Amino acid sequence: MYTLYYAPGSANLLVHLALLEIGAPHTLKRVDLDAGEQRSAAYLAINPNGVVPTLVIDGVPHGEAAALAMLLAERHPEAALAPAPASPLRADYLQWMFYLANSLQPLFRQWFYPGDHLPEGADTIRLAARAGIEKCWSKLDSHLAAHGPYLLGDTFGVVDLYTLMLMRWSRNMPRPATEWPQLAALAARLKARPSWKRVCDAEGLVEWA
Amino acid sequence: MYTLYYAPGSANLLVHLALLEIGAPHTLKRVDLDAGEQRSAAYLAINPNGVVPTLVIDGVPHGEAAALAMLLAERHPEAALAPAPASPLRADYLQWMFYLANSLQPLFRQWFYPGDHLPEGADTIRLAARAGIEKCWSKLDSHLAAHGPYLLGDTFGVVDLYTLMLMRWSRNMPRPATEWPQLAALAARLKARPSWKRVCDAEGLVEWA
Ligand SMILES: N[C@@H](CCC(=O)N[C@@H](CS)C(=O)NCC(=O)O)C(=O)O
Ligand SMILES: N[C@@H](CCC(=O)N[C@@H](CS)C(=O)NCC(=O)O)C(=O)O
Repeated sequence: MYTLYYAPGSANLLVHLALLEIGAPHTLKRVDLDAGEQRSAAYLAINPNGVVPTLVIDGVPHGEAAALAMLLAERHPEAALAPAPASPLRADYLQWMFYLANSLQPLFRQWFYPGDHLPEGADTIRLAARAGIEKCWSKLDSHLAAHGPYLLGDTFGVVDLYTLMLMRWSRNMPRPATEWPQLAALAARLKARPSWKRVCDAEGLVEWA
Repeated sequence: MYTLYYAPGSANLLVHLALLEIGAPHTLKRVDLDAGEQRSAAYLAINPNGVVPTLVIDGVPHGEAAALAMLLAERHPEAALAPAPASPLRADYLQWMFYLANSLQPLFRQWFYPGDHLPEGADTIRLAARAGIEKCWSKLDSHLAAHGPYLLGDTFGVVDLYTLMLMRWSRNMPRPATEWPQLAALAARLKARPSWKRVCDAEGLVEWA
């Protein structure tokens, strides 16, 4: 049994989408980020970094959105959300998960929390994050043009859900991801899946829904 | 058969250490970063991001250091470098791999390449990266104090090799990782393994060797 600690539209979105695609029963617990609930003693006890998501599996809390998505894909192979270890797509799968985790998601963290480490540098950090994010969109768009329609070609999975979440995060940026044509096509394709409507309803998302 | 494209001490170090721990035969090809070889047409053809490492597996090139380390651990289960999917440590393993990939390694990229996205912001970005890196060392050190001696407790593996590489990258920073006592102990323990001497010899590392 799964319990997902979430805030609407936050990094939990990837994990939540994976749960819905799998059809795994789960309970949602909302964390009030505006009220600082992620820094309460109770929440830090299950997530020492004080961030969402946390996924409680059989009573044990775990963190890191991308790790949780990979774990869910492993635990539910019948949902075919990730190439199996023996698949020729396995290396590409891992490579894209880590590309997104290593090169793109951290820049969003800096875009949304530019003063995290150096408050007086926030404006500069935000500008640099924007430039970096746009370079990543260009790379992803070129990749999709050559090897799409999904990140792993014909095979839909958690890499695409991860990309979808990050694309949504760009919706109010000067150049949202959907200004890149292949990314816009990917977003449209993914938003047509039943999991998207369900996640928007469950988290109460109205923008870019 | 494996071919690793590397530059001494760069992100390839993790992959190289994994190959040595496994005892997998491999060929090394040096990439001259100072000469800009990573941006040559020949290299971009195997690594579109123009970075090291690239690992060629059965003739097919793949990138992303952390992904490659996970892949090697999967392909060589007998080396026991990662908890198997059914292990109770699996979630922790994935969580730490993504913590390092998502929160720590990107700050090193900014420390070493502060002008990547906004050249005029380089000084600010470097200062912020330093502050962020030190926060991560504190978190890792507390975790090790409570749950060490390895990142996954008693179980050595690729998460530790990843941490070791990142610790080495901090050696010339104002506060190197080894100023944190648990991290210093972890570094000493890992540097005592035969793989460390072999990797230093093979890559020609003399500093922090
Ligand atoms: N590396 C973490 C990062 C998660 C993260 O940054 N979550 C944000 C929301 S998207 C958060 O909880 N922010 C609240 C805060 O930092 O106070 C993951 O991928 O799970
Ligand atoms: N996300 C990549 C990053 C690799 C990376 O940044 N490599 C650096 C050396 S540590 C590099 O190749 N730098 C040369 C350059 O950017 O021009 C990975 O983890 O493999």
